[in-house]
Amino acid sequence: MFKCSITPAILGRGSVAANRTRNPVLRLRSVRAYATVKNAPLAEKLSINGDRLWHDIHYTAQWSAPSPGGVTRLCADENDKKVRDWFRDQLLALGADYKVNATGTQFGVFEGEDNSIPPIAMGSHLDTVATGGKFDGPLGVLGALEVMRSFKEQGIKTRAPIVLINWTNEEGARFFPLLGSSIVYAGRSTVEEAHAARSNDASELTMGSELKKIGYVGDGPNTFQEFPISAHFEIHCEQSTDLEKAGKPVGWVEGWQGLTWYDVTFHGENGHANTYPMYGRRDALVGAAKLICELEKVAYDKNGGSTVTGIHSRPWGACNIQSKTKITFCLMNKDGQLLEDMGKTIMDRVKSIASLHGLEAEVDRTVHLLPGNFWPEAIDCVRRACGDKGIASRTGTGHDSTMTTLLCPTAMIFARAKDGISHSPKEWTDKDDCAESALVLGRSVLNFDDYMKQKATATA
Amino acid sequence: MFKCSITPAILGRGSVAANRTRNPVLRLRSVRAYATVKNAPLAEKLSINGDRLWHDIHYTAQWSAPSPGGVTRLCADENDKKVRDWFRDQLLALGADYKVNATGTQFGVFEGEDNSIPPIAMGSHLDTVATGGKFDGPLGVLGALEVMRSFKEQGIKTRAPIVLINWTNEEGARFFPLLGSSIVYAGRSTVEEAHAARSNDASELTMGSELKKIGYVGDGPNTFQEFPISAHFEIHCEQSTDLEKAGKPVGWVEGWQGLTWYDVTFHGENGHANTYPMYGRRDALVGAAKLICELEKVAYDKNGGSTVTGIHSRPWGACNIQSKTKITFCLMNKDGQLLEDMGKTIMDRVKSIASLHGLEAEVDRTVHLLPGNFWPEAIDCVRRACGDKGIASRTGTGHDSTMTTLLCPTAMIFARAKDGISHSPKEWTDKDDCAESALVLGRSVLNFDDYMKQKATATA
Repeated sequence: MFKCSITPAILGRGSVAANRTRNPVLRLRSVRAYATVKNAPLAEKLSINGDRLWHDIHYTAQWSAPSPGGVTRLCADENDKKVRDWFRDQLLALGADYKVNATGTQFGVFEGEDNSIPPIAMGSHLDTVATGGKFDGPLGVLGALEVMRSFKEQGIKTRAPIVLINWTNEEGARFFPLLGSSIVYAGRSTVEEAHAARSNDASELTMGSELKKIGYVGDGPNTFQEFPISAHFEIHCEQSTDLEKAGKPVGWVEGWQGLTWYDVTFHGENGHANTYPMYGRRDALVGAAKLICELEKVAYDKNGGSTVTGIHSRPWGACNIQSKTKITFCLMNKDGQLLEDMGKTIMDRVKSIASLHGLEAEVDRTVHLLPGNFWPEAIDCVRRACGDKGIASRTGTGHDSTMTTLLCPTAMIFARAKDGISHSPKEWTDKDDCAESALVLGRSVLNFDDYMKQKATATA
Repeated sequence: MFKCSITPAILGRGSVAANRTRNPVLRLRSVRAYATVKNAPLAEKLSINGDRLWHDIHYTAQWSAPSPGGVTRLCADENDKKVRDWFRDQLLALGADYKVNATGTQFGVFEGEDNSIPPIAMGSHLDTVATGGKFDGPLGVLGALEVMRSFKEQGIKTRAPIVLINWTNEEGARFFPLLGSSIVYAGRSTVEEAHAARSNDASELTMGSELKKIGYVGDGPNTFQEFPISAHFEIHCEQSTDLEKAGKPVGWVEGWQGLTWYDVTFHGENGHANTYPMYGRRDALVGAAKLICELEKVAYDKNGGSTVTGIHSRPWGACNIQSKTKITFCLMNKDGQLLEDMGKTIMDRVKSIASLHGLEAEVDRTVHLLPGNFWPEAIDCVRRACGDKGIASRTGTGHDSTMTTLLCPTAMIFARAKDGISHSPKEWTDKDDCAESALVLGRSVLNFDDYMKQKATATA
């Protein structure tokens, strides 16, 4: 038996962004014309307090389970509550209109000159993976906070309002799927589904129950429909070595590579580990092991990537053939067609392994994110903010920005990362590069504010 | 780095039994002479109440976690307590001198005509694996109980005392290592080590803490030195298809195939599942998967067996390369040299996989049981008890009898099992075959009692 359940692709269905061309700046005339200009005047004036940002990064890293050099702050755990409370206090101190929504996402809205315009957002996430570093994604939230503080200090008032966002469970490290709140915001899932997301440690805990425990189920807006934004900008450490190799502190992120996540469960048969003959066994774990080997092979064959991120096998105990083994894995490719080919190859392998070992296979494609590009007008604002300190770049993974890009102009800023290491206590971005990325974030927002103003004037 | 810790083989060091020849009856003259005789007179008279035994098997199966058709009664869980309490009551009702030792093993001693002789033991285990059936090992304990009841009813009094034993944690299903109490009795481990045995579900529970919770840490004898026995006989369902194919209800078990258990842990490096390039990864789970494939191959290559009985991989969560993966597995072979060859081959593979993937490997050989034979004088008692209803057989796994055989004459009785299925709710032995095996057990004990008497007379 081969059961296959294909979850609607979270970006595969009718995504405008996903169907964009790879180099939008060259294709879209109106943007190209605009792309020749420099930063907006306010953006040119902006400066950033790199010391304060650096302090915040290390100060908030205290809220972590023991992890020397790194941060272990899983979604809705006690440390996540502490950093959220701290972030709320900072927003309130800056005079924000503060809200928490049902999936725990924190919003701090700052008025602009014209509050009829949806705010420009700066957001990322303060929760981390189990073996996280100090930068993914705190740098995005703390960088946004630093921008807002600098705006206030330097008397910079935007035309559009500004909103700072701490998105919940971007990583999916504790509760699957990833992008746990921004996926609801983008209308690709519901609050109910997000609340029902089960803990990856196979316990009975859900994201809803744990958010409730820490007091972070609020009545703020859950969707773009309820609370539209004009644009979304996000700083992230690069998680790759392109900037390092180019000797550049920052990058404008033009798009993302494709990603597909699967759960595959093999069902075999119980039997005595010592006495059951080899031939005729239905060993679910042997099937899973062979699939893991195939996953490595297909990644090299198709010039992509693959990672098995979890395995659960039963029954535990000393003396049994494994009768149920579940693996969770992702396939990655910059090329959409090759990503689809990888998926097809792996599904063929699942079937052949199931046949060879007399197993039943259950397949669930939980996430399918085709390669795509951010919005050219947003990318251009970041590109101009980077100037000659940046290069064009591309992210290898999903972010909250890959959700907001379904709805509104979105782009990301990369900050140079040492050796491209991420999701590790060894993750590192130098102080100056953090500061540079925050400066670029602030300038991007100001560029976009100016772009909207000019567009409004042109249409008027 | 390759760290290898070889635990002293539990049967490898100085085991007399392990060095015996494969067909002891033909080699040992004194026994051959004795082997020509029939059952002892009392043994010929014995009958068994098959209905009562069948009732006990199904009655005690109620003490199980939910498992339709099977029994899930893990060592020292609440159901294990219930069946132990019931067994204690049965022993006391029959007038036993009842004791529980520090590792929870229950003893019920019944006087003989000469209580200066160490008792003849009948034992097995009432706890099961997680996906257990109704027969492994309750048939051994309940069969012994039925024998004792029949002795009482039929006024059969042995010269030597008799002891019924319910050994703790034979399976190692909840706490590793297996043979958790009989290994202490055999002097191959200590009460302290047994108490410290950790739960296989990676929790902090130990066998000592859990036995204490159910009130089964007693002051009875822990070792053969404290409480010697004259012989040990054990019924077990066959777990293979030799009897079924031969059309025989019972078998005399001449010995066991060799078994080695290993824990192998690969240590790699944390990294982001999507963004870390394939080349240069140190993925512990990919290493473990390749080893699992090699384990299947080596079993076929060497005409033996192998089973991976558990895998634990970290960090859990959605988006990380696995940096630590531990697998537990066993190798099986009827030939001692081939078993050693399998172990060497696998150790080579561990090293080459570690090199290929930049992993560190930690190896612990936890159990090493060379193939061996039971005692010819005990086998002969069982063979005569089986008569033309039985055939010679050999077990593929370890039992409490593979511990007692280090100390005193030991043999086992096999009862025919449907399709050889074991460690599964589908495990099945017909009512008549259960009764036949109990009859053989009773006769074997009476044969051995008579054998000891004749030997004493001959020496006098």
